Amino acid sequence: MADGGLEAALLARLKTIATHPSARGLQDDAAVLDWPLGLQLVATHDMLAEGVHFTPRCPPADVGWKLVAVNLSDLAAMGARPVAVLMGAGIGAGRDTAWAAALLAGVMQALTRFTVPLIGGDTIRTGGTAVLALTALGSVPAGAALGRAGATAGDDLWVSGTVGDAGLGLAIAMGRADADPWLLKRYRRPTPRLALGLALRGLATSAMDVSDGLLIDTARLAAASGLSARLDSGSVPLSGPARATGADVRALIAMGDDYELLFTARACEREAVTVAAAGAGTPVSRIGILAAGEGLFLDGARIEPAGWQHR
Amino acid sequence: MADGGLEAALLARLKTIATHPSARGLQDDAAVLDWPLGLQLVATHDMLAEGVHFTPRCPPADVGWKLVAVNLSDLAAMGARPVAVLMGAGIGAGRDTAWAAALLAGVMQALTRFTVPLIGGDTIRTGGTAVLALTALGSVPAGAALGRAGATAGDDLWVSGTVGDAGLGLAIAMGRADADPWLLKRYRRPTPRLALGLALRGLATSAMDVSDGLLIDTARLAAASGLSARLDSGSVPLSGPARATGADVRALIAMGDDYELLFTARACEREAVTVAAAGAGTPVSRIGILAAGEGLFLDGARIEPAGWQHR
Repeated sequence: MADGGLEAALLARLKTIATHPSARGLQDDAAVLDWPLGLQLVATHDMLAEGVHFTPRCPPADVGWKLVAVNLSDLAAMGARPVAVLMGAGIGAGRDTAWAAALLAGVMQALTRFTVPLIGGDTIRTGGTAVLALTALGSVPAGAALGRAGATAGDDLWVSGTVGDAGLGLAIAMGRADADPWLLKRYRRPTPRLALGLALRGLATSAMDVSDGLLIDTARLAAASGLSARLDSGSVPLSGPARATGADVRALIAMGDDYELLFTARACEREAVTVAAAGAGTPVSRIGILAAGEGLFLDGARIEPAGWQHR
Repeated sequence: MADGGLEAALLARLKTIATHPSARGLQDDAAVLDWPLGLQLVATHDMLAEGVHFTPRCPPADVGWKLVAVNLSDLAAMGARPVAVLMGAGIGAGRDTAWAAALLAGVMQALTRFTVPLIGGDTIRTGGTAVLALTALGSVPAGAALGRAGATAGDDLWVSGTVGDAGLGLAIAMGRADADPWLLKRYRRPTPRLALGLALRGLATSAMDVSDGLLIDTARLAAASGLSARLDSGSVPLSGPARATGADVRALIAMGDDYELLFTARACEREAVTVAAAGAGTPVSRIGILAAGEGLFLDGARIEPAGWQHR
């Protein structure tokens, strides 16, 4: 980690966060972790950029929380248990130590909430706006990781929690909608569905997290298994606050940032899925099926989600 | 990884790089790696920012190489064998796909040269200049990792390769010195001393890589073991091209970006260190000793390196 005023101040704070033995007090050039026998390593790396993924006005503690949460959400989608994170904090040229300290406080809140140690990283000044990076490391028993491919025609399509809240929260954050603290929090402080991801091991035939919107992510999930998706808009779970806005379900399923889990399971496992989700404390809803063929069908009509491309 | 024009083009290229099975074709939310029995995981994360760590004029392929090399250098300093990397490419708002493709080409060249797979990451647009992040994962036999602490008074101080070349290369890159392709390359395309790091396991009593300059990094290494360092400027290895510039050794040891290994070993291990370094194909030089007390002494006189602070 480099020296300098802000960097030194942040490093001092990071050392109070990075108390796990693997972090080695952030004194060494790298972290060193024991790896348990029989577990595979799951690794993901996602970035958030100021002006792209968050606005300059966004509270830095919320940005820090989200940086952790979106990466842990990827681990959840793989059925992985979080082991540790490394953070790269590129602080904008115009920001002071207070902004950076608040960012770290949000990172710390998320790490504490989800019981994951910070074991290393880098703190730099950028030449422009803030760019934040995080690598999350997790573990799964060998062969137990979930993935996007693997579903069979006839599998049920499920989603956790409620859909569209974060999109409505974004509209509030942008000043385009009336403030609702719960919806705003759903946008700024997403909850990775870690317990559900673990509970779905051996049960879900395919899984991903919903980051770009239920519609486009459903199209991707089905395509990964070479199947079509049939989505029933009436089954899409909406929260009370989302319903209260009067927003159309067809608009809500095109909004991003839900960080819910989207997954498939065999129809004969409906009860098992419900029991597993209850055990994880996360509601799940059956919203459609995957079928032979390709494409996305909403209430029986083929649609092309905006931004969708085969890849 | 997000969609969009440049992001989609980069993702397509990344998929041609990320051919290791652990990458899962970059189709899933995370990579999954088998972890060999008895090895510890070593993890490091360093960032490079445009306008801070590299200039806008710097060839993007060199930036990509350096992003990989500086992180692998951290693994080398720990005596770790590289296993895989995850990259976060935050491409500047004003850059085109050609710039980003050249960056990836440089990343690919370094990964090929050092035989390390890319298994995941993220590609985004930043709101401003480029900010690049990389996480390097490596392995060491349990308990075999090198670290900055662990030296004893009387241990020899060693450095690999030659010192100051990169600092002179930076002056060339900034237009402040006559062009010398070899010195420029030492700045833009550093070589992580991976083979040497492996060879020093069980032999070096402390180690780090020289990134901020031999002087300040020597002070840090000694302080990590609670010792003082006595550096002999006449023993500092200089390259022919560096000597040819007429630069003073006292200036060269204050320059950064060497990415050589700085390490200590017991005096009785001098021959073993020489043999190990020869086996690794990397020259090493004995440049001083660590002694009781604190502080940094150059040719017998106590000095305070610029930017140095106890931490």
